[in-house]
Amino acid sequence: MVTGEDIWMDFSAVRENCPLIHNITNYVVMNTTANALLAIGASPVMAHAEEEVADMVSIAKALVINIGTLSGHWVKSMVKAAERAREMNIPIVVDPVGAGATPFRTQVALELIEEFSPAIIRGNPSEIISLGMERGKTKGVDSTEPSHRALEAAARLVEKTGAVVCVSGEIDYIIGSRGKTAVKNGHPLMTRVTGLGCTATALCGAFAAVTPDFERAAIGAMAVMGIAGEMAAIKAQGPGSMQMHFLDCLYQMTEQDIVMRVKIESL
Amino acid sequence: MVTGEDIWMDFSAVRENCPLIHNITNYVVMNTTANALLAIGASPVMAHAEEEVADMVSIAKALVINIGTLSGHWVKSMVKAAERAREMNIPIVVDPVGAGATPFRTQVALELIEEFSPAIIRGNPSEIISLGMERGKTKGVDSTEPSHRALEAAARLVEKTGAVVCVSGEIDYIIGSRGKTAVKNGHPLMTRVTGLGCTATALCGAFAAVTPDFERAAIGAMAVMGIAGEMAAIKAQGPGSMQMHFLDCLYQMTEQDIVMRVKIESL
Amino acid sequence: MVTGEDIWMDFSAVRENCPLIHNITNYVVMNTTANALLAIGASPVMAHAEEEVADMVSIAKALVINIGTLSGHWVKSMVKAAERAREMNIPIVVDPVGAGATPFRTQVALELIEEFSPAIIRGNPSEIISLGMERGKTKGVDSTEPSHRALEAAARLVEKTGAVVCVSGEIDYIIGSRGKTAVKNGHPLMTRVTGLGCTATALCGAFAAVTPDFERAAIGAMAVMGIAGEMAAIKAQGPGSMQMHFLDCLYQMTEQDIVMRVKIESL
Repeated sequence: MVTGEDIWMDFSAVRENCPLIHNITNYVVMNTTANALLAIGASPVMAHAEEEVADMVSIAKALVINIGTLSGHWVKSMVKAAERAREMNIPIVVDPVGAGATPFRTQVALELIEEFSPAIIRGNPSEIISLGMERGKTKGVDSTEPSHRALEAAARLVEKTGAVVCVSGEIDYIIGSRGKTAVKNGHPLMTRVTGLGCTATALCGAFAAVTPDFERAAIGAMAVMGIAGEMAAIKAQGPGSMQMHFLDCLYQMTEQDIVMRVKIESL
Repeated sequence: MVTGEDIWMDFSAVRENCPLIHNITNYVVMNTTANALLAIGASPVMAHAEEEVADMVSIAKALVINIGTLSGHWVKSMVKAAERAREMNIPIVVDPVGAGATPFRTQVALELIEEFSPAIIRGNPSEIISLGMERGKTKGVDSTEPSHRALEAAARLVEKTGAVVCVSGEIDYIIGSRGKTAVKNGHPLMTRVTGLGCTATALCGAFAAVTPDFERAAIGAMAVMGIAGEMAAIKAQGPGSMQMHFLDCLYQMTEQDIVMRVKIESL
Repeated sequence: MVTGEDIWMDFSAVRENCPLIHNITNYVVMNTTANALLAIGASPVMAHAEEEVADMVSIAKALVINIGTLSGHWVKSMVKAAERAREMNIPIVVDPVGAGATPFRTQVALELIEEFSPAIIRGNPSEIISLGMERGKTKGVDSTEPSHRALEAAARLVEKTGAVVCVSGEIDYIIGSRGKTAVKNGHPLMTRVTGLGCTATALCGAFAAVTPDFERAAIGAMAVMGIAGEMAAIKAQGPGSMQMHFLDCLYQMTEQDIVMRVKIESL
């Protein structure tokens, strides 16, 4: 089982190696996910032009694709970037934001994950159900389902794509070759800050950049998210200060914080 | 006249029903308006692709269109989204950011409001003058006129479009079938935080999603904005902490805060 | 030599005249650079549509072009805006974000600076080296070179373009007709907040809008950035609170703060 010490080792590797993480992500979270990557010690770059995505992927250590504010042009760039990432053999992490909410999103997400064998797919329960069960209707980009309801869909998605699948919610589930792992860190106030799911996906990219064990990477990223959320919530007065303290907590996080707080269970 | 108790009732309805608010808005404020909608209990979604806007509107309870960082492609999507919103009979709220600053913006704003009969139009004085008087030159996206100077233009705009028109400034004016209402909440530091006008528009969308009385919705949204601004300014040291406390205050707002602080006058 | 009093005079002119600064910038920093411009008293506008950029430039006092999240359409708008700025004889400030990271960015940056004689070019060492030496490979958008290594490239760039060139880093260098000036303000935590380089560029635009001496403008903007960073770092617990305090410090900055803290050296 992945331990707090393992997670700390990977976190330290991010801080030491400062991997360049190429993000093709949505407009809402570009600033906050770049800040979260900087806070853990990674080096973010956001680039989406067809003219340059392949070149940018060539110098990156991981590619994070997030379909949160999709459009036709961007899909072409996502595909180009993913093709190069496959050639370079660097991990691809996919966040299918809003899959299930519109056919366009569901279809783009399915194409990306079926074509490019991502290392990690991270979504909320509604999104994972819509991709794994090829049904499921979400209300928008926030999930209306508890995370355990998506476990069957997640397992199918693992089988179909070979990816590690992470379903986030009150409990985060990571499904891969180790079986199912639950990460029980986090705080309800995190759901009132836009883009913390997208931030989790970006952190999955940073952790996947420093370890070939993508299941361990996803578990570590989700634990670090949840721990920073718990620590930030102690000081926060609401979602505004939550976002601020969250970044500060990511930046200040110590081995002690992780080892003492982490709650991981094999299922 | 709309009372603090009415506003609290609508605010509570937002928290309880968590309406999905579809925003086609500008890049500058996507993050902060999504956070403000989450802070009051609504569920924001940002989507602009022609391929999906109609589908997204179909599951939303209100559509907010903000032309702050306009381009040709986005205008097409705004029109598609508005067409579906009209079919679905959900309220459309329009923020004509920068109308008057360039002919392109003025024209797009006029086309949207003339074609789609929005529930609410919210702008600063320069913007409302440029739309209501079909003249008026603004300096940029910040207004150089006091809000009462836009009252005549606002009245014409109400007549022409049937919308409730909200002119925001030191005093906010809401013009509709009740006549003119002044909301005298707010704080000068709010003008130093980018996108609080756009946030007001997004909140108009959330309130319009829970009451068919759009005048009451606009009054409520502007009062909640102003009260959160007043409360945040007490703690703020400048515009950075103002934005943070503002979100916290939206999140924590109680009936007491609204009833004790609200300053509404019929004119 | 530029003194603290000179900088305060220009800062006061920004606060008094509230110049409209037209930004064509990247998605990551639109919100934070708009907020920084508001905090120092300028009036930001973000507009990129080909249909309107020339009109918007016509009412602006400076044009800031930042290639951080480039695409083909945006390049066309940058060129149109720069053409109008040249006609209007208002200063153009260019931030070649990520030049050297991809051929597309390097080429676009070179075309802009060679064609439009910007008043100021501000970049990190890797970017300036890639433009001045027409070689140099950067890791991404964060620089891997100390700023003094870019001095030769900066000098060439000054010669080639006539621009004032600002290389930012632990020490900021401003190269122009005065020779080389070093600004030694700032704090390491600034490198963990995304977009503070872009913010520096936006501030160069605001200062260039109020003085025809662009070297003085760049020195002033960099000093104000560094001083706000130092003051913010005293209160900050990490990058989240750093961003917040930074905006507050810009807003609150007094003549005393500048005169007492500024560290400028002629080289």
